[in-house]
Amino acid sequence: MEIIIQKFGGTSVADAEKIRQAAKRVIKTAEKGFGVVVVASARGKQTDQLVADALELNPNPPKREMDQLLSTGEQQSVSLFAMALDAMGCDAISFTGSQIRMMTDSVHTKARIVSIDGKRIRRQLELGKIVIVAGFQGIDEHENITTLGRGGSDTTGVALAAILGAKLCEIYTDVDGIYTADPRIYKDAVKMKQISYDEMLEMASLGAGVMHPRAIEFGKKYDVTIHVRSSSEDIEGTIITHEVPQMEGVVVSGATIQRDMAKISLVGVDNVPGNAARVFAHLAKAKVVVHDIVQTEVSSDKANLSFMISISDLVAAKEAVEQIKGDINCRSVFVRKDIAEVSVVGVGMRSHYGVAEKMFEALAEAKVNIDSITTSEIRISCSVDEDQAEKALKAICGAFELHKPAETRNA
Amino acid sequence: MEIIIQKFGGTSVADAEKIRQAAKRVIKTAEKGFGVVVVASARGKQTDQLVADALELNPNPPKREMDQLLSTGEQQSVSLFAMALDAMGCDAISFTGSQIRMMTDSVHTKARIVSIDGKRIRRQLELGKIVIVAGFQGIDEHENITTLGRGGSDTTGVALAAILGAKLCEIYTDVDGIYTADPRIYKDAVKMKQISYDEMLEMASLGAGVMHPRAIEFGKKYDVTIHVRSSSEDIEGTIITHEVPQMEGVVVSGATIQRDMAKISLVGVDNVPGNAARVFAHLAKAKVVVHDIVQTEVSSDKANLSFMISISDLVAAKEAVEQIKGDINCRSVFVRKDIAEVSVVGVGMRSHYGVAEKMFEALAEAKVNIDSITTSEIRISCSVDEDQAEKALKAICGAFELHKPAETRNA
Repeated sequence: MEIIIQKFGGTSVADAEKIRQAAKRVIKTAEKGFGVVVVASARGKQTDQLVADALELNPNPPKREMDQLLSTGEQQSVSLFAMALDAMGCDAISFTGSQIRMMTDSVHTKARIVSIDGKRIRRQLELGKIVIVAGFQGIDEHENITTLGRGGSDTTGVALAAILGAKLCEIYTDVDGIYTADPRIYKDAVKMKQISYDEMLEMASLGAGVMHPRAIEFGKKYDVTIHVRSSSEDIEGTIITHEVPQMEGVVVSGATIQRDMAKISLVGVDNVPGNAARVFAHLAKAKVVVHDIVQTEVSSDKANLSFMISISDLVAAKEAVEQIKGDINCRSVFVRKDIAEVSVVGVGMRSHYGVAEKMFEALAEAKVNIDSITTSEIRISCSVDEDQAEKALKAICGAFELHKPAETRNA
Repeated sequence: MEIIIQKFGGTSVADAEKIRQAAKRVIKTAEKGFGVVVVASARGKQTDQLVADALELNPNPPKREMDQLLSTGEQQSVSLFAMALDAMGCDAISFTGSQIRMMTDSVHTKARIVSIDGKRIRRQLELGKIVIVAGFQGIDEHENITTLGRGGSDTTGVALAAILGAKLCEIYTDVDGIYTADPRIYKDAVKMKQISYDEMLEMASLGAGVMHPRAIEFGKKYDVTIHVRSSSEDIEGTIITHEVPQMEGVVVSGATIQRDMAKISLVGVDNVPGNAARVFAHLAKAKVVVHDIVQTEVSSDKANLSFMISISDLVAAKEAVEQIKGDINCRSVFVRKDIAEVSVVGVGMRSHYGVAEKMFEALAEAKVNIDSITTSEIRISCSVDEDQAEKALKAICGAFELHKPAETRNA
């Protein structure tokens, strides 16, 4: 029996009507002869409510107890989902993370999966049942309940697909797939039929927040085909899969905007081994997530070191930099707020020239000034003024014809 | 280290303020040097809400899934309780039924406890932690979550006291103890200092609904001293314990009313072996709970058979009786509604004469007509017209001086 994993997020199980809708979709898949394993998140705003309940009692609740509390949200969803299926005449059974031995490490609130016992799920599938698994949660070796942190339910879905050798992991969500750009900004953006894990990873971490990078990494590592699709409409979404030859024909798959960034520049730092490491170790200790880093030599013994951070990390980052400033002999510190990063992503870049040139030309024509530039093998990012970011994205989308299906673009 | 179990019901953990209040009480006990194990129920109306959510999806939800759903209520309470203690600077850890291996049979929604592993709790107590255990829930041998049914959290508390050899199981509730009679009816009723398990069992099943009979039976079986007391006031409640010699000096410990009863009388039944068994087996199959049974011979081969039931079971009971009527050659069936049962309870009855006489005299003086009479070793019950029930109770309370502390009454 071929197995399909169907993951429903919080909005897709928010109330009785939504649960019934999701259950109908599950039954349709089961009727085609597939073994269906459903992964469900907590209902709608349930998790927010529980967090509020916790904070009312304790501004800094112990993480173990937080996991104990939050995991109830998914447990409620899965039992209700099983009841809905039963009411439709369909045999179903729900499981918590504990019940399928979803073993994790003990890092509460952001645990990592260690192993899953697929036996119990398989046995129930063989009995003809639909299996509903609570996403986001596991247990450690002492039976303490853990949660997987952001994107946890996606990760549960992909991990189950891996362990059960599923044909597909379907992620049902409130968008109907991955677009070449954010359609709220670039209204001509088109839905991609498929995208590679690497491209999706770049786009996910650049803020195209449909799926959490971690679940995609998991998919890549264990070769799980992921289908991101709409929970309200029955149309094909976007397949995330391994790179296939025709993907390389497409130079740029998509473009993204990441807003609310700030840049910190350390000017005239002593250019000696270990100084950069010292800076970023210090920032990590302050829990600042550093995005792109640019270092340029300004003389034989001095360098300028810049890095991008989220504006929300700015206070912590500035404090950390002030503490370390003397140690690295930094002459001065500049902070630039109100910047955004526009990027193009595409595995085709590996084998095509001129992508950067085309991007810079498009920005120049649109009179957008580029602050700094960073690149990876399959991505080029330019930081620009926040208030020019949308104009920049539109210009780039036009230049790379992101309003057309991939196969009809001029490479 | 001596251990005390403190059980808090749903109203005692209904909101943040109530949880904090309960937590303070726990800390006070811990500061006296006791190891404290808290058992908590689901918050206030949480369970009702979950039941409503379930019924919206399925009018007849599978019992396994119902248990999976409802058990989240207690899980939320215990993690929140632990957070509250942590905020007060007190080390605490919460456990689900699964985490302390509260093993039960597989009878979902009314499972019976098979065994509990006290090791994990003991280890945490030794580490100086307060342990918070989710009441009402367990797991079966396949890790399916079960619930213990009505009075389940009381039962969890008493069972933990038994397994841990606790000095005491305190039941915190919204009344401040067990009274000689319901103070809402007999305003002069006094709180009992202590009551025996057997008396409490009679009173519990007669509707003095402070504790579920099952938890009391458990206490009796495993010799657990239970202290029923107020969660809002810091005053002594009532101790439920083994019979002690001075209890026998008290003839009548308390009086109760059980309302909303009906009596079904089968007139002229063939008085042959097996007929009564046939009737009650049939009623049991129809899930009718039968209270007192009275059978009287009316001739050498005919008998009248009466039994009391709750009015809520009347329709099912009548139907069952109609089905069996022919088999037992019953001449006619009488139903009497609007009756109540008033009872006196006391272990002292075993060694005192004249209790029944005194009760009947009191009722006669109050001009209350007695419909039928049933007795056990420590109880006498009279069924009376519903609208005479309160008058009857007051008359009995007066006769047995239930407005006075036990030690000052005239035996």
